[in-house]
Amino acid sequence: MIKNMSDIAIGIDIGGTNTAIGIVDRDGNVLYEKKPQLPTPQKRENPDASQEKSEEILEKYTTTLANEIKSAIDTVRQNTPGIDIAGIGIGAPNGNYYKGTIELAPNLPFVGVVQFADLIKAKVPEIKIIKLTNDANAAALGEMIYGGGKGMKNFVMITLGTGVGSGLIVDGDLVYGHDGFAGECGHIVVVPEGRLCGCGGLGHLEAYCSAPGIARTVYELLAQYNDSQSELAGIPFNSMNSEMVYNAAVKGDKIAKEAFEITGELLGRGLAITVDHLSPEAIFLFGGAAAAGELIFKPTKDSMERHVLPVFRNKVKILPSELKAGTAAIVGASALVWKELEKMES
Amino acid sequence: MIKNMSDIAIGIDIGGTNTAIGIVDRDGNVLYEKKPQLPTPQKRENPDASQEKSEEILEKYTTTLANEIKSAIDTVRQNTPGIDIAGIGIGAPNGNYYKGTIELAPNLPFVGVVQFADLIKAKVPEIKIIKLTNDANAAALGEMIYGGGKGMKNFVMITLGTGVGSGLIVDGDLVYGHDGFAGECGHIVVVPEGRLCGCGGLGHLEAYCSAPGIARTVYELLAQYNDSQSELAGIPFNSMNSEMVYNAAVKGDKIAKEAFEITGELLGRGLAITVDHLSPEAIFLFGGAAAAGELIFKPTKDSMERHVLPVFRNKVKILPSELKAGTAAIVGASALVWKELEKMES
Repeated sequence: MIKNMSDIAIGIDIGGTNTAIGIVDRDGNVLYEKKPQLPTPQKRENPDASQEKSEEILEKYTTTLANEIKSAIDTVRQNTPGIDIAGIGIGAPNGNYYKGTIELAPNLPFVGVVQFADLIKAKVPEIKIIKLTNDANAAALGEMIYGGGKGMKNFVMITLGTGVGSGLIVDGDLVYGHDGFAGECGHIVVVPEGRLCGCGGLGHLEAYCSAPGIARTVYELLAQYNDSQSELAGIPFNSMNSEMVYNAAVKGDKIAKEAFEITGELLGRGLAITVDHLSPEAIFLFGGAAAAGELIFKPTKDSMERHVLPVFRNKVKILPSELKAGTAAIVGASALVWKELEKMES
Repeated sequence: MIKNMSDIAIGIDIGGTNTAIGIVDRDGNVLYEKKPQLPTPQKRENPDASQEKSEEILEKYTTTLANEIKSAIDTVRQNTPGIDIAGIGIGAPNGNYYKGTIELAPNLPFVGVVQFADLIKAKVPEIKIIKLTNDANAAALGEMIYGGGKGMKNFVMITLGTGVGSGLIVDGDLVYGHDGFAGECGHIVVVPEGRLCGCGGLGHLEAYCSAPGIARTVYELLAQYNDSQSELAGIPFNSMNSEMVYNAAVKGDKIAKEAFEITGELLGRGLAITVDHLSPEAIFLFGGAAAAGELIFKPTKDSMERHVLPVFRNKVKILPSELKAGTAAIVGASALVWKELEKMES
């Protein structure tokens, strides 16, 4: 698989709990993966959000990361001596692609704007390219370079997980917008004055179509029908996940089936809005709910076709992501590096 | 103003009633304008939408257009002998940029997909570049090349007229999408299951924020308040236009003022969705309602800021278009040519 000296990239994904580090080749094969993953510093380590404490946590975290990066490189070099790393791609919450910064990330213990890429670069000077964006953008690049988006110039990636993220590919590149933060389709309003979203907004797509969003819909339906027969009626609100809803739906549970119908209806409404903007060739769904197959794809597709402008009707495919769930985050992050090399060559 | 042989472009705008033809220099000055404008062929000329009749109308129309183009060139050449035309840009309903076609345009008498650019090219072989897109996309390019969007890489143009159109500039170029039709923000749902839109959809931005949309809001408010004191209460539904509503609002008419508040609230809701997608540097408003100044800009801005994801708050300017109302259509269309030259040179 290793074709030449620049056929290896490092992918790093800064998740809410853990940070994943891996080495990926040009075909998306994971050659190395740090196990167990590194813990991501938690907000509780800097409860007063002080600048000093922020810098201290950051210094410790980036030093550990840099050591892990060097150790990963060493491991791969034991198998292939002299191999060169093309660069590092980082998926990070509120990651600013243009500046390499992490800015005002609500769930990280850092204060303000953090020069993340520069800090890593200073500690691993061997690496020339270090690029950073949010995880959904990285996933979109992963889909374009390794997955179902190969050869597509215009498509959309939707990640359905704890939140709803998106990455927008227009004319062969990610849309970053003027500030580096574009592509937040999870926060478009699909129900005016609707449910409270984690961001403080009302009625956002994320409040309905994320994994917790589906659980909220189940509880709304249980409340509405007072349905004690549903197998979901015995699960506490805090324990409900989309897999449980899926399993119940497969067995014919009425509440679970309706929850998927509603989720698809609202997801389709949101996707129609994205199609009206960008007219993509395809929309890829990634993550928890996407694993429910036709239970989610059918109502989503029906709703999207109903809501989209006629000129776009029956033109846009909704497809499952081809990225593997376990390694998508590091594979997506590594794709940032190949895309950067492509831009430098053109 | 004329700098060199390729400093002149022809702009053509195919409107619902008339077709405008002009010659524009690189600074956006209109050097020639056909007066009176050419009539655009009407649907009633082909009531059964037959293929034969469509071809006949098309042949006649493109022949007349070609003759007018030649005559325009001759006129400009009388002033500047030997001057060369860089190309022709055409703003057309349902114009496909990639193929130069007009496709399934609901208000034109043509059947199916019409090879419009090729037909013109065959009749004016002197011209090498003939590019075509819809009028709002052309206006966005006009804003970028001649207007307030100069130097901006990411912005959005919203045209408020009989309909609501949009042109999306991402990374310095228009978003055309995979099929050439992207940028239809007028048809995003802002009120689920709301008003009927001209396209058949429900609750679209266009059904509220176009000129007829504002009139509809006035009538809704008159009906709601049964307000015979409003000066708008004496105007028939069919005669109401946004200028009348503006004049009434300036004089303090309660219904008119509330109509602008509602229009701005919904426009801002729509713009927030576009910002969540694209994170533009600015949004330009063009056309009828935009002339109402703060009456529309203030509620629009307030609503956009309220609905947008916090990371984008207070970052995006809402500005009046700098294109002149009278010539914006041909000036915008001509911008297609300069953009094409820029792409060929890069």
